[in-house]
Amino acid sequence: MINVSLPDGSVRQYESGITPMGVAQSISEGLARNVISALVNDKQVEVTTPITEDATIKLLTWNDDLGKQAFWHSSAHLLAQAIVEFYPNAKLTIGPAIENGFYYDVDFGDEKFTETDFAKVEKAMLENAKKKAEFKLYPVSKAEALETYKDNEYKTELISNLNDGEITFCTHDNFTDLCRGGHIPHTGIVKAAKILNVAGAYWRGDEKNKMLTRVYGITFPKQKDLTDYLTLLEEAKKRDHRKLGKELGLFAFSEKVGQGLPLWLPKGAALRRKLENFLLKEQTKMGYEMVVTPHIGQKELYVTSGHYAKYGADSFQPIHTPNEGEEFLLKPMNCPHHCEIFKTSQWSYRDLPKRYAEFGTVYRYEQSGELHGLTRVRGFTQDDAHLFCTADQLLEEFKKVIDLVLYVFRNLGFDNYSAQISLRDPENKEKYIGTDENWEKAEQAIITAASEKGLPTVVEYGEAAFYGPKLDFMVKDALGRKWQLGTIQVDYNLPERFDLTYIGSDNEKHRPVMIHRAPFGSMERFIAILLENTAGNLPLWLTPDLYTILPISEKYVEYGEKVLNLLAEEEINGLIDSRNEKTGKKIRDAEMKKIPFMLVIGEKEAENGTISVRKHGEGDLGEMTVEQFINFIKEETKLK
Amino acid sequence: MINVSLPDGSVRQYESGITPMGVAQSISEGLARNVISALVNDKQVEVTTPITEDATIKLLTWNDDLGKQAFWHSSAHLLAQAIVEFYPNAKLTIGPAIENGFYYDVDFGDEKFTETDFAKVEKAMLENAKKKAEFKLYPVSKAEALETYKDNEYKTELISNLNDGEITFCTHDNFTDLCRGGHIPHTGIVKAAKILNVAGAYWRGDEKNKMLTRVYGITFPKQKDLTDYLTLLEEAKKRDHRKLGKELGLFAFSEKVGQGLPLWLPKGAALRRKLENFLLKEQTKMGYEMVVTPHIGQKELYVTSGHYAKYGADSFQPIHTPNEGEEFLLKPMNCPHHCEIFKTSQWSYRDLPKRYAEFGTVYRYEQSGELHGLTRVRGFTQDDAHLFCTADQLLEEFKKVIDLVLYVFRNLGFDNYSAQISLRDPENKEKYIGTDENWEKAEQAIITAASEKGLPTVVEYGEAAFYGPKLDFMVKDALGRKWQLGTIQVDYNLPERFDLTYIGSDNEKHRPVMIHRAPFGSMERFIAILLENTAGNLPLWLTPDLYTILPISEKYVEYGEKVLNLLAEEEINGLIDSRNEKTGKKIRDAEMKKIPFMLVIGEKEAENGTISVRKHGEGDLGEMTVEQFINFIKEETKLK
Repeated sequence: MINVSLPDGSVRQYESGITPMGVAQSISEGLARNVISALVNDKQVEVTTPITEDATIKLLTWNDDLGKQAFWHSSAHLLAQAIVEFYPNAKLTIGPAIENGFYYDVDFGDEKFTETDFAKVEKAMLENAKKKAEFKLYPVSKAEALETYKDNEYKTELISNLNDGEITFCTHDNFTDLCRGGHIPHTGIVKAAKILNVAGAYWRGDEKNKMLTRVYGITFPKQKDLTDYLTLLEEAKKRDHRKLGKELGLFAFSEKVGQGLPLWLPKGAALRRKLENFLLKEQTKMGYEMVVTPHIGQKELYVTSGHYAKYGADSFQPIHTPNEGEEFLLKPMNCPHHCEIFKTSQWSYRDLPKRYAEFGTVYRYEQSGELHGLTRVRGFTQDDAHLFCTADQLLEEFKKVIDLVLYVFRNLGFDNYSAQISLRDPENKEKYIGTDENWEKAEQAIITAASEKGLPTVVEYGEAAFYGPKLDFMVKDALGRKWQLGTIQVDYNLPERFDLTYIGSDNEKHRPVMIHRAPFGSMERFIAILLENTAGNLPLWLTPDLYTILPISEKYVEYGEKVLNLLAEEEINGLIDSRNEKTGKKIRDAEMKKIPFMLVIGEKEAENGTISVRKHGEGDLGEMTVEQFINFIKEETKLK
Repeated sequence: MINVSLPDGSVRQYESGITPMGVAQSISEGLARNVISALVNDKQVEVTTPITEDATIKLLTWNDDLGKQAFWHSSAHLLAQAIVEFYPNAKLTIGPAIENGFYYDVDFGDEKFTETDFAKVEKAMLENAKKKAEFKLYPVSKAEALETYKDNEYKTELISNLNDGEITFCTHDNFTDLCRGGHIPHTGIVKAAKILNVAGAYWRGDEKNKMLTRVYGITFPKQKDLTDYLTLLEEAKKRDHRKLGKELGLFAFSEKVGQGLPLWLPKGAALRRKLENFLLKEQTKMGYEMVVTPHIGQKELYVTSGHYAKYGADSFQPIHTPNEGEEFLLKPMNCPHHCEIFKTSQWSYRDLPKRYAEFGTVYRYEQSGELHGLTRVRGFTQDDAHLFCTADQLLEEFKKVIDLVLYVFRNLGFDNYSAQISLRDPENKEKYIGTDENWEKAEQAIITAASEKGLPTVVEYGEAAFYGPKLDFMVKDALGRKWQLGTIQVDYNLPERFDLTYIGSDNEKHRPVMIHRAPFGSMERFIAILLENTAGNLPLWLTPDLYTILPISEKYVEYGEKVLNLLAEEEINGLIDSRNEKTGKKIRDAEMKKIPFMLVIGEKEAENGTISVRKHGEGDLGEMTVEQFINFIKEETKLK
């Protein structure tokens, strides 16, 4: 008999040789129907793999990320089977599951695999799947494996790097592949399949090797899941911030300036400034003070902070001076500079908290292959702040920071948020810097603050940084995608390294605690998420051009310009479309540019001193005086 | 007979051997009385140096910079003479004239020369000066010169590096020195002398050499000139922006961050933001569009712009990436980035001018010895903009930029300004890039714009950059010191190098013209000049804290905070001084911090809902309601 521990902490006894599926069946029929994979002692196995010693086990369904991985890994076998049916000379290489679906890298030899071939392969996959063939994993000797793949140099290379005794094949239906395992019980569970696209990919990612064809696919246990996924994909494409950024003229990249270094075009720069002012105003109310620091610092600064030792080699390399032997680094974060600002005075406990805020542009090297629009860049501006306070002030400061983050979410349309509290591993307290007393105070402060502010949270033990606990915010966007946004982080380390002190009420020097926080995270990433969440229909108060004035003929341009000036005086910014075009065409253009209001003017409006207002995506709002429109806009753009 | 040409273009004939003084006497007695030096064929000589061939000559008086140089160079002889009288063993080295006065580097051997010794030396200098001794320059053989200075290793070294035939001594009174010449006629002209300070200086500026004592002095032809100068010096010290920056908590430097890299403290950062918003608002009205670009760019960008070839070696060196072999540079200017932004679209002539503005932080390497407060730094933020327009639009754009610069001057208290127009050298047109027609248009545009706007200007031919003509603004500050501020510059070069085009009305591609302009110059330098000009009493609309509320006892702190909030709501920012201190002390502290208004509140004010207003440096303004104060401040901070 063996002991099997389940995730809920319960322990069950089984005969040695029981399979995960056996365990599932012993619990409930329903569970057994849904189990498609399992973790045994943290290793993913088949549901048919026998368990022969005491073990912890986690049964996996489609709803688990690892369950999906097994599902898609198994589907790659179905893809490979179908490809070989149509292209007997194709050489298979590797075919892993990925975040959404799977791919298989194939050497099609002289043949081509293109979009027109997708349908027949999808059809064959599903026909084969219907056979409910089991995935059978079994060991093979190295010699036998090499013999099997003697005509496939890719598999031969893979096998050569494996030791005898660790090689397994997997057979389902009439198809066998070299495979490490981790499959679903049988092919019948796969009910919907789609080849998404093909792309070139070098064997083993090395450009000196042959270019293979990477076939991307995805499968689902229900047809409806696939339909939903394709709709989402379509919608996500429309909302891609790179596409929207171009359409709305927000930002651009230049080869000459460099990859991952966005150029903010006028409308994007105006959007940034509005976001900055929005945060700045609220922060000022909350007692933050703005500072400005340079974008470089001596290497010594980062040696002191510890960043150089940790990240130096993987970062932009030091900047040398023509003489004097100095070395500077592009700043990868603002905290060391803010510590130096804190050090310009000897503060008393009465002066704390000091809250230094900066829209600080930082530079971090990323491999060019990792770069993606505004979400993965090499230079970005953090809406950064560092709070220096006493341990007793942490709770109050945390509450205020949460208030600020919620203010940001509320006014920017992120209604679906949650937070993760990352605490120490209580079993390994020695891993962390700072006194036990301070850690307890800080962790309690975070938990209490989150609870008082009604934040939906999960607590993760052992997820704190070595220098302090933290609170991370996640938002779910309109497509159900999760994004990590702002963070609030306690730091006992930098105050130590920079020897920061304040004079306490006892007239002695004490160490302040430091909080890092950034509600947006970075301007770049935040704007990307904002665009994807709103599909480019930004909150009105943030829209660069709120309206476009559309004179129905040249005769009314003068009146249009008068209206433009009246609105500009109230700092309600917009455009006038004085082109010699039909009004219908002007309206269509404005709709495409997602300009919220179209102000149509003709003879009647010019006579009455009015405008006819049309709203983007909604249509006519009727005739208004300019004053009425101003009041209407002021109401609509009020912050919550 | 020889021909002597004078600066007014006239030519006079004299017998060979005539001296500059002779020429002066032949013109007028008054001129002869004032002439103290002369330029003969652009070489500065004694007024007694015979002219033996045709020559151009400029007679120099105290009012000429070169006249002052001769005066101070001669005074260095008086200083050396006096030093040797008191310290017979002192070894003289070199003693040049400098911008304000002169110095002499002396090896005092075992003796010390300190502040207590200044008076006796000054006295001796003036007593010797009264003898009206002539400065007599005469040739000496190298052997004789070496023999004279055989006990002075410094002069020996200097003489060793000279050739026989180019060595001269100068004798006045009982004192002789190795000297190249350029003296005033006699010592009697020196009527006031002051030793300013002493400092250590290595022989020949090399730290491997012996440390000498550098004695700084200044002399004048009238005692009143010295008194005025010392008053100015005293006032300039009080107005030193480095001192004020510290006192007002505006900025600081950190050794760890690096020299010449200012950290902007809260009050300084707020001041910057206010200046930015001030300019931004006016620029927006004028059709500028804000952009934001990264602080680095690929080396290639600066190779294209030509900056790398010209400045690369003397700049911060390239930044390498850990792999991928990329090279970036810290951006030394914003124009290449703005050219790349212009290139993101194909513009039509109807879209021009495009006016891209950015508060762009740039980095330029300066030797650490050259750094000075905020006026000479390694990182600074330009209030930059680049206008891309057609040649025909230049006049209109120039006028608008001049308007903007004058708006800046008017609202920031620079009433005393002038401008220099730098044009091509009409004799050397081939030195410049761009067509003749465009140059003529641009130069005419600048001249016309400056004249229409009533700018006091001087025109300098041959002072244009090779890539275009320019207009530079100078302001005179409250102490009469001149500062170069904003610049407007036409550029035909970068549009060429970046291949910038627009589609003209002829449907063909054309090159736009580019204008660089920065009314402030840089935030750092501008704030320094602003501080020195106002002695820290900034224009009210720009003051970080407009007032401090002074409750006369703890009882009124609550009412004080209410007032603070009422004012904050109107975005009138200030402080409250709730310390348990006497009101007199609080007022003194506020006066020292140059806070414009002190709002004293006690029982009467709390009851009446009023405040008693005191103005910095002026005193009581009487009791006001909070609303009256708000209106008063709004009126006082209105922009002109």
